[in-house]
Amino acid sequence: MVRPHIDVGRVNRRLDHLWEIGSTNRGGVTRLAYSEKESEAIDYLCNELDPSFDIRTDKIGNVYATLDSSAEKSLFLGSHLDTVFNGGRLDGTLGLVTALEAIEAVMASDREFGIPPTLAIFRAEESSRFGQHTIGSRGALGMLTAEDLAATDHSDVPLWEAMLQAGFDPQNLSTSILDPTAIEAYLELHIEQGRVLDEADDDIAIVSSIRAPVRYQVTVTGADDHSGATPMDLRQDAIAAAAEMISAIERLGVDASDEGDIVTTVGDITVPDGAVNKVCGKVSFPIDIRSNDLAHRDEVEERIIDMLTSIACQRNVNLEYDLLDRSEPVIMDDTIIEWLSTITDSLSVPYRIIPSGGGHDAMNFEHANIPAGLIFVPSLDGVSHNPAEETTEEAIVAGTTLLANALITPPPITDSQN
Amino acid sequence: MVRPHIDVGRVNRRLDHLWEIGSTNRGGVTRLAYSEKESEAIDYLCNELDPSFDIRTDKIGNVYATLDSSAEKSLFLGSHLDTVFNGGRLDGTLGLVTALEAIEAVMASDREFGIPPTLAIFRAEESSRFGQHTIGSRGALGMLTAEDLAATDHSDVPLWEAMLQAGFDPQNLSTSILDPTAIEAYLELHIEQGRVLDEADDDIAIVSSIRAPVRYQVTVTGADDHSGATPMDLRQDAIAAAAEMISAIERLGVDASDEGDIVTTVGDITVPDGAVNKVCGKVSFPIDIRSNDLAHRDEVEERIIDMLTSIACQRNVNLEYDLLDRSEPVIMDDTIIEWLSTITDSLSVPYRIIPSGGGHDAMNFEHANIPAGLIFVPSLDGVSHNPAEETTEEAIVAGTTLLANALITPPPITDSQN
Repeated sequence: MVRPHIDVGRVNRRLDHLWEIGSTNRGGVTRLAYSEKESEAIDYLCNELDPSFDIRTDKIGNVYATLDSSAEKSLFLGSHLDTVFNGGRLDGTLGLVTALEAIEAVMASDREFGIPPTLAIFRAEESSRFGQHTIGSRGALGMLTAEDLAATDHSDVPLWEAMLQAGFDPQNLSTSILDPTAIEAYLELHIEQGRVLDEADDDIAIVSSIRAPVRYQVTVTGADDHSGATPMDLRQDAIAAAAEMISAIERLGVDASDEGDIVTTVGDITVPDGAVNKVCGKVSFPIDIRSNDLAHRDEVEERIIDMLTSIACQRNVNLEYDLLDRSEPVIMDDTIIEWLSTITDSLSVPYRIIPSGGGHDAMNFEHANIPAGLIFVPSLDGVSHNPAEETTEEAIVAGTTLLANALITPPPITDSQN
Repeated sequence: MVRPHIDVGRVNRRLDHLWEIGSTNRGGVTRLAYSEKESEAIDYLCNELDPSFDIRTDKIGNVYATLDSSAEKSLFLGSHLDTVFNGGRLDGTLGLVTALEAIEAVMASDREFGIPPTLAIFRAEESSRFGQHTIGSRGALGMLTAEDLAATDHSDVPLWEAMLQAGFDPQNLSTSILDPTAIEAYLELHIEQGRVLDEADDDIAIVSSIRAPVRYQVTVTGADDHSGATPMDLRQDAIAAAAEMISAIERLGVDASDEGDIVTTVGDITVPDGAVNKVCGKVSFPIDIRSNDLAHRDEVEERIIDMLTSIACQRNVNLEYDLLDRSEPVIMDDTIIEWLSTITDSLSVPYRIIPSGGGHDAMNFEHANIPAGLIFVPSLDGVSHNPAEETTEEAIVAGTTLLANALITPPPITDSQN
């Protein structure tokens, strides 16, 4: 165990600078996937790097900064700089700023890197713009399909076009896919986005599994009518139907969480032609269903679809539901969990091993059979995707120290794992 | 009883021309209050007028076209040319096109006007843009308040500014208020916007009363959270709370319509920062409650407010509700109802006397103690505020013939009524 010097002032300065890029007038930050603000944030971080880093940008804008590009293997530390609409200061950003700090702390110390590190800045982790998560890391690992690239944003701009507009070239993506045999392991630090650490007063969590979402976009079509002249019993009210559906989705989620791990959410509603004096004929909303237990999630998904169908039938409205995303839950690598636990133990930092509610770029490395570790620091009050996102300085130091020690003490990966 | 020649081809040509002004790519028409398209429609109709009309525009853009501006009294025939978002071909427009046709039919006949007519084109009858109904006729009758003029549209443009932008001058509105003693009566023809006439196969209804709305804008504030990482029992989900509220508003409306005349509607939902991967912290929606029975409406309004407060309290979310509008139901003038009934009887047109679900400019004349009559033609399938809005050619001829006869046979208004 070593305690390289962690410069918390430098960490905060970088977080504050990034906080300004895309800052909103409601106290948050908006740097959407493949926006100019996302590129500006990446440029800022690259300019902070020591000249000894070798920086490479791939076909879809992911950036890899490595200290020894001739090495046979590298230990990847990564995360993302895009945000949700009016998001917080830490989601994604903290992972890259602490990873850089950990690398710099080892460089400034008298210790050597166990394996040369690579700082990996992935594009477009958040699904706020295209309804597609972890676009950059999926692209980097050869998991992005033509269908994914055709997904559109709120202005009907397809993902591939947004990539072109940002200056990249998604057509020849296969030529820049990462070589898994050259990556010893992938580590990512992130705020928890839940309340477990904050309530338990622990500084660190090592993640055991990642809940994965199945997502639909639901469209309900009834009939537009005059609100004052259409008797209650003659209406085909799309808003009233959607309200009943959203309540049912919540109730099914609450009930099913007694039986197993599950969360069900409707996080948006779009009414294209609403008015105070109309019975509204059309509503659209997304559903997000997550669990780390695939069988349980499948069961809840089926109950929700059945319930929506039944409500639409009873109310004589039309129901369409389009699959947006279906991802598999991920069990994180045991060897990595043990390795990180041993280091954290040796640092005398209070920690626990918990599942993750949110998806992260780390899960794609596990899918690609590259051992991956995910480290959480607390979200105060469990707040995330929100301007009030915050963690503690103690947790930032503990997490960065853990990363720095991981860089010095290589993971005990066997050949069969790679 | 006379049967002046009604030129249905001319009526349809004018309806079709107006249908093109603001036509949408979804088969409807959008001519919002104080938009350029509303002005364009008014200019078109003025250009259709015979040169013998004397045309005057007031301080807020209402237009009066009269055949004898020196007469002591005039019989007003009016309606509006603005529409809801993606509205239909007939709402408002049919009233003005048939009124003009009736005046022209009498002019072309060998009969005289009982009292010289005035065609009144009122601005901004629909509340779609500013959440305020019958803006033009209320302004013309001295009922528009400074608070009304401060109401804003979806882009935060206040009504007074929209009036200025359209070329008018709301500051000195009091100098152009109509003189009630110079108006013998006000007549308006409109589609029913309900299903009564269509189901009964009647061509005409004479309106006995007008349901009036009380309207609120509701804002629910919970907490933004991560959809995957926030357990169901720790959420303050504004969308789920709004869904429960909207269902309750519908249920209370259905239950209360067994006890008396009532309709309750939520016709729009706004989610300012929604995303598929968020528990959403803020939602806003309008409520519209209408009845022709004020006591019953007050009771339902109280039940709804109580229910919203209770749901917000149980869910630990914040509730705000701002009054948008509180209008009084209107009982239409008995003398006018009898006069129009007598004429319709003499024409052998099947008709009935019914309440109106929607508010119309006519109700403001009744409020100003100017006798007003409201005539309905069928809405096929009860459809209104919708591109599918339609009526029958027989009903158009019957309604226009009724108006023409009313122009020839003056209403039996006593001095005490005026």
